[in-house]
Amino acid sequence: MNKRCLIISGGEECPLPADLGEMDCVIACDKGYLYAGRMGLKPDLIVGDFDSAPMPETAIPVERLPSRKDDTDTMIAARHAAEMGCSEAVILCCFGGRLDHTLANLQTGAWLAERGITVRLIGGDTEAAVFSGGTIRFPRREGWSLSLFALSDRCEGVTIRGTKYDGEGLTLTNAFPLGVSNVWTSEVAEITVSSGILLVMQSLLKEGEHI
Amino acid sequence: MNKRCLIISGGEECPLPADLGEMDCVIACDKGYLYAGRMGLKPDLIVGDFDSAPMPETAIPVERLPSRKDDTDTMIAARHAAEMGCSEAVILCCFGGRLDHTLANLQTGAWLAERGITVRLIGGDTEAAVFSGGTIRFPRREGWSLSLFALSDRCEGVTIRGTKYDGEGLTLTNAFPLGVSNVWTSEVAEITVSSGILLVMQSLLKEGEHI
Repeated sequence: MNKRCLIISGGEECPLPADLGEMDCVIACDKGYLYAGRMGLKPDLIVGDFDSAPMPETAIPVERLPSRKDDTDTMIAARHAAEMGCSEAVILCCFGGRLDHTLANLQTGAWLAERGITVRLIGGDTEAAVFSGGTIRFPRREGWSLSLFALSDRCEGVTIRGTKYDGEGLTLTNAFPLGVSNVWTSEVAEITVSSGILLVMQSLLKEGEHI
Repeated sequence: MNKRCLIISGGEECPLPADLGEMDCVIACDKGYLYAGRMGLKPDLIVGDFDSAPMPETAIPVERLPSRKDDTDTMIAARHAAEMGCSEAVILCCFGGRLDHTLANLQTGAWLAERGITVRLIGGDTEAAVFSGGTIRFPRREGWSLSLFALSDRCEGVTIRGTKYDGEGLTLTNAFPLGVSNVWTSEVAEITVSSGILLVMQSLLKEGEHI
């Protein structure tokens, strides 16, 4: 069964994407439960140390975390998604705040991808996919760029089709930003990786910006 | 000789840091040459495809790059810094714009660190250090957080002193965001790594935000 988990993180608030589809489980992190309410969603679980929002008074199960902990709230939610056997996770409201939180959320994506879970991270002017094998298809988005990054030391067998800078069987490394600011040339870009953790980032171009 | 290179990137404009010290070489990337002018600096070299600023009319050497290229402008500047035998690079105005550019600049930092060059990246509300061995001391900054990330698959022998969450001989991985949102407890935090590429990120807390 293809189980899907939605994690609502506590970064900058963003709307529920129209193409989200059915989710089997919703976990809200810290003030993410306020966002969930405004999205009209009832989380199955709320986790957090509630340093950025008051502890919710609700019938929804709440896992109260100590303020001093190794994991971020979003990482705890990711552990739950992995334990539930999810094959796909969507992490919402995970960008647009402090850069350290953004990086932590990308690394949480890498942690899930290492476990074979395909991750979609959404927030502000950025949408990312993190995966460790297989092919993902990205429908054309006018006014957005498409960039590839290795989140592991190496990504092997990277193939890019349907873009201005296509390539076959490329190797990307985490210390060489090849593949920044690519752009669609067809209706769908198809990106494959055979090993390593690949990040595909779609960024909204600013007004007047071109590639 | 301890040669130091300043790279002025084309991200969000930021002021010249007060504690920068003497630089042996200044390279401006694309519209970074406009920032350099406003900082009162005369670059030794300007590189770029000039997609975000007009080609400068100046006596300063300009390396005009094709628009279609594998490297980002900042990566080209980093290559120059490495070729000149620099032991230290400061990359300014490299954050605060699109997240794909920010990540590319962090990976450029990793590329330099792999070559034994200590890198400081500065922009907006973020200041980062990227290094692959040794110890860096970070003076206390009120209202800022201090976070650690592995940019390589593993960082071994990570020691943190002078903070709320100190540790000795830790291993960090790039898929596990341990060490996010730490904070100073003494006048100087001392951070050591024995192998791997470590990113230490200082982030300005937003108003009302606490750790």
